[in-house]
Amino acid sequence: MKFKNYLNDKKILIDKTLDSVIPAEDKDPSIIHQAMRYSVFGGGKRLRPALTLASAELLGIDNKTAIYTACSIELIHTFSLIHDDLPCMDNDDFRRGKPSCHKVYGEPIALLAGNALLVYAYKTILKNNDFKEIKKETILSLIEEMTRCVDTENMLGGQVKDIIQEKKENKKEYLLGLYKQKTSALICAAIRSGAILAEATEKEMKALTRYGECIGLAFQITDDILDMMQDQRNPDKITYPGEFGIKEAKKDSEKFILEALDALKIFDDKSGFLSGLADYILTRQV
Amino acid sequence: MKFKNYLNDKKILIDKTLDSVIPAEDKDPSIIHQAMRYSVFGGGKRLRPALTLASAELLGIDNKTAIYTACSIELIHTFSLIHDDLPCMDNDDFRRGKPSCHKVYGEPIALLAGNALLVYAYKTILKNNDFKEIKKETILSLIEEMTRCVDTENMLGGQVKDIIQEKKENKKEYLLGLYKQKTSALICAAIRSGAILAEATEKEMKALTRYGECIGLAFQITDDILDMMQDQRNPDKITYPGEFGIKEAKKDSEKFILEALDALKIFDDKSGFLSGLADYILTRQV
Repeated sequence: MKFKNYLNDKKILIDKTLDSVIPAEDKDPSIIHQAMRYSVFGGGKRLRPALTLASAELLGIDNKTAIYTACSIELIHTFSLIHDDLPCMDNDDFRRGKPSCHKVYGEPIALLAGNALLVYAYKTILKNNDFKEIKKETILSLIEEMTRCVDTENMLGGQVKDIIQEKKENKKEYLLGLYKQKTSALICAAIRSGAILAEATEKEMKALTRYGECIGLAFQITDDILDMMQDQRNPDKITYPGEFGIKEAKKDSEKFILEALDALKIFDDKSGFLSGLADYILTRQV
Repeated sequence: MKFKNYLNDKKILIDKTLDSVIPAEDKDPSIIHQAMRYSVFGGGKRLRPALTLASAELLGIDNKTAIYTACSIELIHTFSLIHDDLPCMDNDDFRRGKPSCHKVYGEPIALLAGNALLVYAYKTILKNNDFKEIKKETILSLIEEMTRCVDTENMLGGQVKDIIQEKKENKKEYLLGLYKQKTSALICAAIRSGAILAEATEKEMKALTRYGECIGLAFQITDDILDMMQDQRNPDKITYPGEFGIKEAKKDSEKFILEALDALKIFDDKSGFLSGLADYILTRQV
């Protein structure tokens, strides 16, 4: 399958670069660097950074120029996963089939390793300073995009809502809002960051943003469907398939995928990876 | 006292600006904004942001131009305090005489509010984009300075060492290294950020960095002396006065203050607030 080959190919470059930006395991204080590496190299598919590379590529920017931006997105993702798993948050003992960071390194080190990954995301994006072809304004826009995607309107706001579990009249509207914050925000930032690097037009940016939002929603709904089918659903949390049934969840997820594909039309046939991802989400089993 | 008047004067501007950069209490999701505000407006003296304003002022930059940079430093400070107090870290129920953030808002919201303050520090520094007189390179240097001061070589590394409490042969060297990470790093970043805004010469930057490092060490040693005299010492932690006695701790703290004052000599008589702070640390009682 073309999409999987592309992803595996990009994963090699992404992993190599992540290895170069995170301090070595034996660097003092080594336990936090071990914890950071344990989680970053704990089996992630690298979907988000691959999206950055793909949107940059679509608009004419090569992988070498986009790689630090892509990796900064993966570091943000790992930061959020480590903190999500903490005992005071979701209290998850496992992540991607392995003991979660705090089960291996203890709660305080996991907390600090999460913080450190957020800080290293900024360090990594600042590495764009080494590229003469990237304007200083562009780097500032990338930093702004990344900061906005984590703020209390987006990822952090989503985590708050996940905890307080408000009772809302319109559950569908509420859940889609929550998924936008929890999942679409970072996926959007990944795609938009590639486009920022390429100095995309407003029309291109709008199309890619809509694609990212829809892909994010479909991805999260599918995730919840898979959790439910594998009996891994957290009974304390309301989810899309839990509220509306698997059939309706699948139907709505497909609707978002079609909307995402529709947004890509302005790029003609060049958006191979992005449309491939849409198909992948529709058919994914894990 | 001139120093206290200066600090009170700056505090008004700093508080007003902090109020403008943190989302309003009633903004959704309101609980995290309440928690952020509870800690930011919980009685801090605003020493660190005042240092940014003072070093910028010393080199010819007015307060209006330096205020966002100054406030970003205070947000970093508050982020570190909230996380330091968490049950899995120091487990402190009180901060500045009031219940700590997690005692009021619960552990998960305090964790997220800490994260949010780190993110809002970046948001605040990006507000320098609004000033045409600040170069884009300068803003990137400020972001780099802030990021470096939090990384695992500095603040986060200090927090790790505070937790793991390694047994070291040379305890004085170890403790001074720890204090540099825990306290001097942010105080240095505060002072250096003002100097970065002013595009300071290498000589000026070196002097201010040395001043900042020494002030930070003296400040932390004095803090530990005061805790010990007020019986608020954490028995699990080794401290400078705990290891070497109050007399030697006071002597070493004075030595650092003299070194800090010596570093200021290149500025002639213009460094009023900075030398005033040195005197304040020597004589402070709370």
